Amino acid sequence: MKIQYPLILISLISLLPIASYAEPIQPTANGINFPIGLKNWRAISTSYRTDNNTQRVILGNSIAVAASRSGNTKPWPQGSILAKLVWKNRQHPQWDAAIVPGEFVHSEIMIRDSQKYNATGGWGFARWVGLSQQPYGKNESFAQECYACHNHAKDSNYVFTKPAKIP
Amino acid sequence: MKIQYPLILISLISLLPIASYAEPIQPTANGINFPIGLKNWRAISTSYRTDNNTQRVILGNSIAVAASRSGNTKPWPQGSILAKLVWKNRQHPQWDAAIVPGEFVHSEIMIRDSQKYNATGGWGFARWVGLSQQPYGKNESFAQECYACHNHAKDSNYVFTKPAKIP
Repeated sequence: MKIQYPLILISLISLLPIASYAEPIQPTANGINFPIGLKNWRAISTSYRTDNNTQRVILGNSIAVAASRSGNTKPWPQGSILAKLVWKNRQHPQWDAAIVPGEFVHSEIMIRDSQKYNATGGWGFARWVGLSQQPYGKNESFAQECYACHNHAKDSNYVFTKPAKIP
Repeated sequence: MKIQYPLILISLISLLPIASYAEPIQPTANGINFPIGLKNWRAISTSYRTDNNTQRVILGNSIAVAASRSGNTKPWPQGSILAKLVWKNRQHPQWDAAIVPGEFVHSEIMIRDSQKYNATGGWGFARWVGLSQQPYGKNESFAQECYACHNHAKDSNYVFTKPAKIP
Protein backbone atom coordinates (compact mmCIF):
# COMPACT_ATOMS: atom_id res chain seq x y z
CA MET A 1 0.00 0.00 0.00
CA LYS A 2 1.34 3.40 -0.99
CA ILE A 3 0.99 6.01 1.74
CA GLN A 4 -0.52 9.26 0.47
CA TYR A 5 1.78 11.74 2.18
CA PRO A 6 0.32 14.86 0.52
CA LEU A 7 -3.18 13.84 1.60
CA ILE A 8 -2.02 13.25 5.17
CA LEU A 9 -0.34 16.65 5.15
CA ILE A 10 -3.48 18.39 3.88
CA SER A 11 -5.54 16.60 6.54
CA LEU A 12 -3.17 17.72 9.26
CA ILE A 13 -3.17 21.33 8.04
CA SER A 14 -6.96 21.38 8.12
CA LEU A 15 -6.80 20.61 11.84
CA LEU A 16 -4.82 23.78 12.59
CA PRO A 17 -6.81 26.55 14.22
CA ILE A 18 -7.83 29.35 11.87
CA ALA A 19 -5.42 32.19 12.53
CA SER A 20 -6.26 35.85 12.15
CA TYR A 21 -3.96 37.76 9.82
CA ALA A 22 -5.36 41.25 10.30
CA GLU A 23 -2.88 44.05 9.67
CA PRO A 24 -1.06 44.89 12.89
CA ILE A 25 -1.82 48.30 14.39
CA GLN A 26 1.04 50.72 13.65
CA PRO A 27 2.77 52.55 16.50
CA THR A 28 2.32 56.30 16.84
CA ALA A 29 5.05 58.73 15.70
CA ASN A 30 6.33 59.03 19.27
CA GLY A 31 6.96 55.27 19.31
CA ILE A 32 4.00 54.07 21.37
CA ASN A 33 2.53 50.68 20.50
CA PHE A 34 -1.13 49.79 20.83
CA PRO A 35 -1.33 47.61 23.95
CA ILE A 36 -2.16 43.97 23.22
CA GLY A 37 -5.46 42.94 24.77
CA LEU A 38 -6.57 46.50 25.55
CA LYS A 39 -10.23 45.77 24.82
CA ASN A 40 -10.20 43.16 27.57
CA TRP A 41 -8.99 45.58 30.24
CA ARG A 42 -11.22 46.42 33.20
CA ALA A 43 -13.39 49.53 33.35
CA ILE A 44 -12.35 52.51 35.46
CA SER A 45 -14.97 55.02 34.38
CA THR A 46 -17.22 56.44 31.68
CA SER A 47 -17.99 59.92 30.39
CA TYR A 48 -19.73 61.77 27.62
CA ARG A 49 -19.07 65.15 26.05
CA THR A 50 -21.60 67.70 24.93
CA ASP A 51 -19.02 69.71 22.94
CA ASN A 52 -18.15 66.99 20.44
CA ASN A 53 -21.13 64.65 20.79
CA THR A 54 -19.22 61.59 21.99
CA GLN A 55 -19.27 59.02 24.79
CA ARG A 56 -16.51 56.75 26.03
CA VAL A 57 -15.47 54.02 28.38
CA ILE A 58 -12.18 54.41 30.24
CA LEU A 59 -10.23 51.19 30.81
CA GLY A 60 -6.98 50.60 32.64
CA ASN A 61 -4.11 48.15 32.71
CA SER A 62 -3.63 46.23 35.97
CA ILE A 63 -1.49 48.96 37.55
CA ALA A 64 -4.04 51.67 36.75
CA VAL A 65 -7.02 49.59 37.90
CA ALA A 66 -5.32 48.74 41.20
CA ALA A 67 -4.44 52.42 41.70
CA SER A 68 -7.93 53.57 40.82
CA ARG A 69 -9.67 51.11 43.14
CA SER A 70 -7.40 51.86 46.08
CA GLY A 71 -7.54 55.63 45.55
CA ASN A 72 -3.83 55.78 44.84
CA THR A 73 -3.94 58.28 41.98
CA LYS A 74 -2.15 61.33 43.37
CA PRO A 75 -0.07 60.78 41.33
CA TRP A 76 -0.96 57.69 39.31
CA PRO A 77 1.80 55.09 39.74
CA GLN A 78 4.56 54.59 37.18
CA GLY A 79 3.47 52.12 34.50
CA SER A 80 -0.21 53.05 34.69
CA ILE A 81 -1.95 53.02 31.33
CA LEU A 82 -5.35 54.63 30.90
CA ALA A 83 -7.29 53.89 27.72
CA LYS A 84 -10.33 55.56 26.21
CA LEU A 85 -12.60 53.98 23.61
CA VAL A 86 -14.67 56.78 22.09
CA TRP A 87 -17.88 56.68 20.05
CA LYS A 88 -20.19 59.24 18.47
CA ASN A 89 -23.49 59.56 20.32
CA ARG A 90 -26.64 58.28 18.72
CA GLN A 91 -30.22 58.04 19.94
CA HIS A 92 -31.46 54.62 21.01
CA PRO A 93 -34.02 53.39 18.44
CA GLN A 94 -36.32 52.00 21.17
CA TRP A 95 -35.84 54.58 23.93
CA ASP A 96 -35.63 58.22 22.86
CA ALA A 97 -33.94 59.48 26.02
CA ALA A 98 -31.14 56.89 25.89
CA ILE A 99 -27.98 57.86 24.02
CA VAL A 100 -25.84 54.93 22.91
CA PRO A 101 -22.53 54.41 21.08
CA GLY A 102 -22.71 55.00 17.33
CA GLU A 103 -19.73 55.28 15.01
CA PHE A 104 -16.39 54.40 16.59
CA VAL A 105 -14.19 57.51 16.74
CA HIS A 106 -10.83 56.53 18.18
CA SER A 107 -8.91 54.83 20.94
CA GLU A 108 -6.49 56.78 23.08
CA ILE A 109 -4.00 55.83 25.74
CA MET A 110 -1.79 57.64 28.20
CA ILE A 111 1.18 55.86 29.76
CA ARG A 112 2.70 57.04 33.03
CA ASP A 113 6.50 57.24 32.87
CA SER A 114 7.58 60.47 34.49
CA GLN A 115 11.18 60.17 33.27
CA LYS A 116 10.62 59.05 29.67
CA TYR A 117 7.75 61.46 29.06
CA ASN A 118 8.99 64.33 31.19
CA ALA A 119 8.33 66.83 28.36
CA THR A 120 4.59 66.03 28.38
CA GLY A 121 3.71 66.00 32.06
CA GLY A 122 5.12 62.54 32.74
CA TRP A 123 2.65 60.86 30.39
CA GLY A 124 3.12 59.36 26.94
CA PHE A 125 0.12 60.10 24.73
CA ALA A 126 -1.15 58.07 21.77
CA ARG A 127 -4.28 57.90 19.65
CA TRP A 128 -5.47 55.56 16.89
CA VAL A 129 -8.29 56.73 14.65
CA GLY A 130 -11.28 54.73 13.42
CA LEU A 131 -11.98 51.01 13.36
CA SER A 132 -8.86 50.63 11.18
CA GLN A 133 -6.88 52.20 14.06
CA GLN A 134 -4.64 54.56 12.08
CA PRO A 135 -2.03 56.29 14.23
CA TYR A 136 -2.87 59.96 14.87
CA GLY A 137 -0.15 62.52 14.21
CA LYS A 138 2.39 62.77 11.37
CA ASN A 139 5.33 63.38 13.65
CA GLU A 140 5.94 63.17 17.35
CA SER A 141 4.99 66.81 17.94
CA PHE A 142 1.33 65.68 18.03
CA ALA A 143 1.89 64.77 21.68
CA GLN A 144 2.23 68.49 22.46
CA GLU A 145 -1.36 68.92 21.28
CA CYS A 146 -2.49 66.21 23.74
CA TYR A 147 -0.43 67.73 26.51
CA ALA A 148 -1.77 71.25 25.89
CA CYS A 149 -5.33 70.02 26.34
CA HIS A 150 -4.52 67.81 29.34
CA ASN A 151 -2.96 70.87 30.96
CA HIS A 152 -6.53 71.75 32.01
CA ALA A 153 -6.28 68.72 34.32
CA LYS A 154 -2.87 69.66 35.71
CA ASP A 155 -4.24 69.55 39.26
CA SER A 156 -5.18 65.89 38.84
CA ASN A 157 -1.86 64.72 37.41
CA TYR A 158 -2.94 65.70 33.86
CA VAL A 159 -5.67 63.06 33.98
CA PHE A 160 -9.25 64.05 33.13
CA THR A 161 -10.66 60.66 34.12
CA LYS A 162 -12.55 60.60 37.40
CA PRO A 163 -12.57 56.98 38.58
CA ALA A 164 -16.18 55.94 39.03
CA LYS A 165 -17.29 54.68 42.43
CA ILE A 166 -17.72 50.93 42.01
CA PRO A 167 -19.21 48.78 44.80
CA MET B 1 16.52 30.33 77.26
CA LYS B 2 12.75 30.47 77.58
CA ILE B 3 10.92 30.55 74.25
CA GLN B 4 8.29 33.30 74.06
CA TYR B 5 5.44 31.33 72.43
CA PRO B 6 2.85 34.14 72.68
CA LEU B 7 5.25 36.54 70.95
CA ILE B 8 5.94 34.01 68.18
CA LEU B 9 2.20 33.52 67.73
CA ILE B 10 1.56 37.26 67.48
CA SER B 11 4.40 37.55 64.97
CA LEU B 12 2.92 34.77 62.85
CA ILE B 13 -0.58 36.27 62.94
CA SER B 14 0.80 39.59 61.76
CA LEU B 15 2.05 37.83 58.62
CA LEU B 16 -1.45 36.72 57.61
CA PRO B 17 -2.98 38.67 54.74
CA ILE B 18 -5.57 41.23 55.79
CA ALA B 19 -8.94 39.72 54.94
CA SER B 20 -12.01 41.70 54.00
CA TYR B 21 -15.10 40.93 56.06
CA ALA B 22 -17.60 43.13 54.25
CA GLU B 23 -21.22 41.99 54.49
CA PRO B 24 -22.04 39.68 51.59
CA ILE B 25 -24.47 41.08 49.00
CA GLN B 26 -27.94 39.61 49.54
CA PRO B 27 -29.73 37.84 46.67
CA THR B 28 -32.81 39.46 45.15
CA ALA B 29 -36.33 38.23 46.02
CA ASN B 30 -36.42 36.12 42.85
CA GLY B 31 -33.34 34.24 44.05
CA ILE B 32 -30.64 35.84 41.90
CA ASN B 33 -27.20 36.21 43.44
CA PHE B 34 -24.81 39.05 42.69
CA PRO B 35 -22.18 37.54 40.36
CA ILE B 36 -18.75 37.23 41.98
CA GLY B 37 -16.16 39.32 40.17
CA LEU B 38 -18.70 41.31 38.17
CA LYS B 39 -16.69 44.51 38.38
CA ASN B 40 -13.83 42.76 36.58
CA TRP B 41 -15.97 41.75 33.60
CA ARG B 42 -15.19 43.14 30.15
CA ALA B 43 -17.02 46.10 28.65
CA ILE B 44 -19.69 45.60 25.99
CA SER B 45 -21.04 49.13 25.73
CA THR B 46 -21.88 52.43 27.39
CA SER B 47 -24.90 54.73 27.42
CA TYR B 48 -26.36 57.75 29.12
CA ARG B 49 -29.94 58.82 29.69
CA THR B 50 -31.36 62.30 29.49
CA ASP B 51 -34.62 61.31 31.25
CA ASN B 52 -33.07 60.31 34.57
CA ASN B 53 -29.67 62.03 34.36
CA THR B 54 -27.51 58.89 34.53
CA GLN B 55 -24.68 57.20 32.68
CA ARG B 56 -23.59 53.59 32.73
CA VAL B 57 -21.11 51.00 31.54
CA ILE B 58 -22.47 47.67 30.34
CA LEU B 59 -20.32 44.65 31.16
CA GLY B 60 -20.79 41.00 30.27
CA ASN B 61 -19.79 37.58 31.49
CA SER B 62 -17.64 35.49 29.11
CA ILE B 63 -20.66 34.08 27.24
CA ALA B 64 -22.15 37.53 26.68
CA VAL B 65 -18.83 39.11 25.63
CA ALA B 66 -18.14 36.32 23.13
CA ALA B 67 -21.68 36.68 21.74
CA SER B 68 -21.41 40.45 21.54
CA ARG B 69 -18.06 40.44 19.77
CA SER B 70 -19.09 37.80 17.24
CA GLY B 71 -22.48 39.44 16.58
CA ASN B 72 -24.30 36.37 17.92
CA THR B 73 -27.03 38.22 19.84
CA LYS B 74 -30.23 37.27 17.98
CA PRO B 75 -31.00 35.84 20.45
CA TRP B 76 -28.28 36.17 23.09
CA PRO B 77 -27.02 32.67 24.02
CA GLN B 78 -28.24 30.81 27.09
CA GLY B 79 -26.12 31.70 30.11
CA SER B 80 -25.37 35.23 28.93
CA ILE B 81 -25.28 37.77 31.74
CA LEU B 82 -25.37 41.49 31.00
CA ALA B 83 -24.54 43.90 33.81
CA LYS B 84 -25.04 47.63 34.12
CA LEU B 85 -23.21 49.87 36.57
CA VAL B 86 -25.13 53.15 36.75
CA TRP B 87 -24.10 56.58 38.06
CA LYS B 88 -25.71 59.98 38.32
CA ASN B 89 -24.26 62.47 35.85
CA ARG B 90 -22.11 65.31 37.10
CA GLN B 91 -20.18 68.02 35.36
CA HIS B 92 -16.42 67.60 35.12
CA PRO B 93 -14.76 70.21 37.39
CA GLN B 94 -12.04 70.94 34.82
CA TRP B 95 -13.97 70.61 31.55
CA ASP B 96 -17.51 72.02 31.50
CA ALA B 97 -18.71 70.03 28.51
CA ALA B 98 -17.61 66.68 29.95
CA ILE B 99 -20.15 64.77 32.03
CA VAL B 100 -18.67 62.17 34.35
CA PRO B 101 -19.94 59.59 36.87
CA GLY B 102 -21.13 61.07 40.14
CA GLU B 103 -23.09 59.24 42.83
CA PHE B 104 -23.38 55.48 42.26
CA VAL B 105 -27.04 54.57 41.64
CA HIS B 106 -27.28 50.81 41.23
CA SER B 107 -26.01 47.67 39.54
CA GLU B 108 -28.36 45.60 37.42
CA ILE B 109 -28.02 42.25 35.72
CA MET B 110 -30.07 40.19 33.32
CA ILE B 111 -29.41 36.46 32.99
CA ARG B 112 -30.45 34.56 29.86
CA ASP B 113 -32.23 31.31 30.69
CA SER B 114 -35.26 30.98 28.43
CA GLN B 115 -36.72 28.06 30.38
CA LYS B 116 -36.20 29.22 33.96
CA TYR B 117 -37.26 32.81 33.25
CA ASN B 118 -39.91 32.08 30.64
CA ALA B 119 -42.39 34.39 32.41
CA THR B 120 -40.12 37.43 31.92
CA GLY B 121 -39.03 37.08 28.30
CA GLY B 122 -36.40 34.43 28.98
CA TRP B 123 -34.34 36.72 31.18
CA GLY B 124 -33.89 36.82 34.94
CA PHE B 125 -33.72 40.39 36.20
CA ALA B 126 -31.97 41.69 39.32
CA ARG B 127 -30.92 45.05 40.73
CA TRP B 128 -28.90 46.09 43.78
CA VAL B 129 -29.20 49.69 44.97
CA GLY B 130 -26.43 52.02 46.12
CA LEU B 131 -22.85 51.35 47.15
CA SER B 132 -24.22 49.09 49.92
CA GLN B 133 -25.89 47.02 47.16
CA GLN B 134 -29.29 46.45 48.75
CA PRO B 135 -31.50 44.09 46.73
CA TYR B 136 -34.26 45.94 44.86
CA GLY B 137 -37.83 44.63 45.24
CA LYS B 138 -39.65 43.32 48.32
CA ASN B 139 -40.98 40.23 46.60
CA GLU B 140 -40.32 38.51 43.32
CA SER B 141 -43.04 40.46 41.50
CA PHE B 142 -40.49 43.27 41.04
CA ALA B 143 -39.20 41.38 38.00
CA GLN B 144 -42.48 42.15 36.23
CA GLU B 145 -41.59 45.82 36.50
CA CYS B 146 -38.24 45.15 34.80
CA TYR B 147 -39.92 43.02 32.15
CA ALA B 148 -42.60 45.63 31.41
CA CYS B 149 -39.94 48.23 30.67
CA HIS B 150 -37.74 45.84 28.68
CA ASN B 151 -40.77 45.06 26.55
CA HIS B 152 -39.86 48.22 24.63
CA ALA B 153 -36.83 46.25 23.41
CA LYS B 154 -38.82 43.14 22.49
CA ASP B 155 -37.45 43.27 18.94
CA SER B 156 -33.90 42.93 20.25
CA ASN B 157 -34.52 39.99 22.57
CA TYR B 158 -35.63 42.35 25.41
CA VAL B 159 -32.13 43.82 25.54
CA PHE B 160 -31.68 47.60 25.33
CA THR B 161 -27.89 47.36 25.15
CA LYS B 162 -26.41 48.04 21.73
CA PRO B 163 -22.94 46.42 21.70
CA ALA B 164 -20.43 49.14 20.89
CA LYS B 165 -18.19 48.66 17.87
CA ILE B 166 -14.78 47.86 19.30
CA PRO B 167 -11.69 47.59 17.02
